[in-house]
Amino acid sequence: MKTQVCIIGAGPAGLLLGHLLRAEGVECIVLERRTPEYVLGRIRAGVLEQVTVGLMERLGLDARMKEEGLPHDGFNLADGERLIRIDCAELTGRQVMVYGQTEITRDLMEACDERGLEVVYEAQDVALHGIDGDAPHVTFSKGGTSNTIDARIVVGCDGFHGPSRQAIIGTGGGREFERVYPFGWLGILADVPPCNHELIYANHARGFALASMRSATRSRYYIDVPTSENVEDWSDDRIWDELATRLGPDAAPHITRGPSIEKSIAPLRSYVFAPMRLGALMLCGDSAHIVPPTGAKGLNLAASDVYYAAEALTAFFQRSDNDAIAAYSDTALARVWKAERFSWSLTRLMHRFPEDGAFERAMQVAELDYIANSRAAQTSIAENYVGLPV
Amino acid sequence: MKTQVCIIGAGPAGLLLGHLLRAEGVECIVLERRTPEYVLGRIRAGVLEQVTVGLMERLGLDARMKEEGLPHDGFNLADGERLIRIDCAELTGRQVMVYGQTEITRDLMEACDERGLEVVYEAQDVALHGIDGDAPHVTFSKGGTSNTIDARIVVGCDGFHGPSRQAIIGTGGGREFERVYPFGWLGILADVPPCNHELIYANHARGFALASMRSATRSRYYIDVPTSENVEDWSDDRIWDELATRLGPDAAPHITRGPSIEKSIAPLRSYVFAPMRLGALMLCGDSAHIVPPTGAKGLNLAASDVYYAAEALTAFFQRSDNDAIAAYSDTALARVWKAERFSWSLTRLMHRFPEDGAFERAMQVAELDYIANSRAAQTSIAENYVGLPV
Repeated sequence: MKTQVCIIGAGPAGLLLGHLLRAEGVECIVLERRTPEYVLGRIRAGVLEQVTVGLMERLGLDARMKEEGLPHDGFNLADGERLIRIDCAELTGRQVMVYGQTEITRDLMEACDERGLEVVYEAQDVALHGIDGDAPHVTFSKGGTSNTIDARIVVGCDGFHGPSRQAIIGTGGGREFERVYPFGWLGILADVPPCNHELIYANHARGFALASMRSATRSRYYIDVPTSENVEDWSDDRIWDELATRLGPDAAPHITRGPSIEKSIAPLRSYVFAPMRLGALMLCGDSAHIVPPTGAKGLNLAASDVYYAAEALTAFFQRSDNDAIAAYSDTALARVWKAERFSWSLTRLMHRFPEDGAFERAMQVAELDYIANSRAAQTSIAENYVGLPV
Repeated sequence: MKTQVCIIGAGPAGLLLGHLLRAEGVECIVLERRTPEYVLGRIRAGVLEQVTVGLMERLGLDARMKEEGLPHDGFNLADGERLIRIDCAELTGRQVMVYGQTEITRDLMEACDERGLEVVYEAQDVALHGIDGDAPHVTFSKGGTSNTIDARIVVGCDGFHGPSRQAIIGTGGGREFERVYPFGWLGILADVPPCNHELIYANHARGFALASMRSATRSRYYIDVPTSENVEDWSDDRIWDELATRLGPDAAPHITRGPSIEKSIAPLRSYVFAPMRLGALMLCGDSAHIVPPTGAKGLNLAASDVYYAAEALTAFFQRSDNDAIAAYSDTALARVWKAERFSWSLTRLMHRFPEDGAFERAMQVAELDYIANSRAAQTSIAENYVGLPV
């Protein structure tokens, strides 16, 4: 097989990029190791910045999002006693959209056939070759048959554990920046109405809690737990009790309990790989960087990478203009670092760290109190939450 | 001797409080362990917030400050390459005043006789008694004679090492919050023009540097060094060389070198003692809290404590209104914690910490880059730098 762009990974980043390239007449093939059902089964973030919403609009794939998504004007920080509302709409003129990553993926997936975006699912043993030249190829096996795709550019949208970043590391190139947090998020998904119409991030004496939602009838809650915890030790009741305590007196009475339909513990990590391009290989999304989920930047950062990558690839294939591809890593990383900073700093503010003493705890209380009383501080948080400009 | 308020310590906090009380007709005596010359010889901060300037204005002791002080519209953060100017005047409508703590102290000291503020210098072995009742007394010796002052209220303005806070600790009361930093500031004072008309705080790969000044002809510079360093190992030339490197290419060419007239290494500490009142004893300034010098909050925080204390004491002695004294600790601490937060966070941003890895360093770079591009972030820094409202 031969194409212009071989995209590794058919999660939201890979599918979004594929559709954007097809819309500009650029040839591409998407390779995905899993089945469509597996990809759709992954529970991920659900708060979309304007950059992400805007790309779905540009593709004309925003109808269901506009119908079913929940536009939010703001969100709340809680300190165990009160809610501190960050009114993003008033402070920045922008909203966010609550619409699950699963739904975005489904919308992108269902449009593939009609728009001629070729996705090869269950592509095993994907390997990248010749990425430091201008004639890379990707090999994979499917159903026992070996295949090769010759491409001009390969884009790695294959997540943290995929082969694309490893291909750069294999050349001896690149540098990793990492911080692993000493806790994970225990999440519960339940078909109950949310306790509040907007998200609540709480820093309670007993630990972190997040009240989020996927829709008006599906809630997503989290608490932080030591990474040594087992999800089996957390009954639904135990989680609901802990949430009621940590979310505080304003939220607790409004929590509707129900059986979990998904329950898992996710580790928290900050990670950046630089550069995000080597030769003919570009990285987008989790393949190049991970943020802790605090602030919901993961999917949105993948979307801004895809935005820059699509612009660069379109310029290259339509006008033989290589400048944007050459600048891609610097361009994307400038925004990545700012989102990493925000996610790290909100994680730092809202969680208890084992190494923190009384002074550091007092600094969290003081910062929340400062935020509660400063329009400038609220604006700074709001502009990061709705997404810095691309 | 008998008075209404016995003030321990004749630094700027004690003298400021004494003058404010005298102006309201409240009786007071100030006790100071050192000589006037020693007090004036202490080199301290030199950037005044409006709260501090305003108290000198209210006392009518602002003539020399207005004549010799340097009003600053803003200051600069540097990241080793560029200057990021924080335009406080434009962002907040307020300025700061560069005028040395030594000069403030001199102005307050010279007005004592005329205004009938009694200061007992060289008061040795100061001890507080009966502070948990309503008839405290303070004992001290001077020139071999033992003395007692009976007062209604005692105010501790005697700094971090004075007896006042220890008197509360001695009753078993209070709680300490502390963070000691793994570096100190090596300062040099020289009679040379400043390299820049506003302060520059620099975070360079080699470490922190601060370009400050006391006047148009007297400069104050700092670099951070490990606390294990000896000032004897730092020749003037070595300091000037290091400053030229750390302050970066925009500032270095404008540094005028000259012989040091003072050179010392000061440790950095964040410290808060709570509560700031027990019974008849109130604490002001360094006796209750220490900030690292980053952001120049120390003297200004003492001034806001004094502001609250003077209001409370005036209400009590003029109108027998005890409410403000009862609320003093909470009122003062609310502002203290915010200034502690700002000083800690600016220290965190501008220094290299031994425990920081590549990721944490990248977070500093990302935060400086975010600040450089966000009006909200600049406004947040500016409003803290000029001082949050009292």
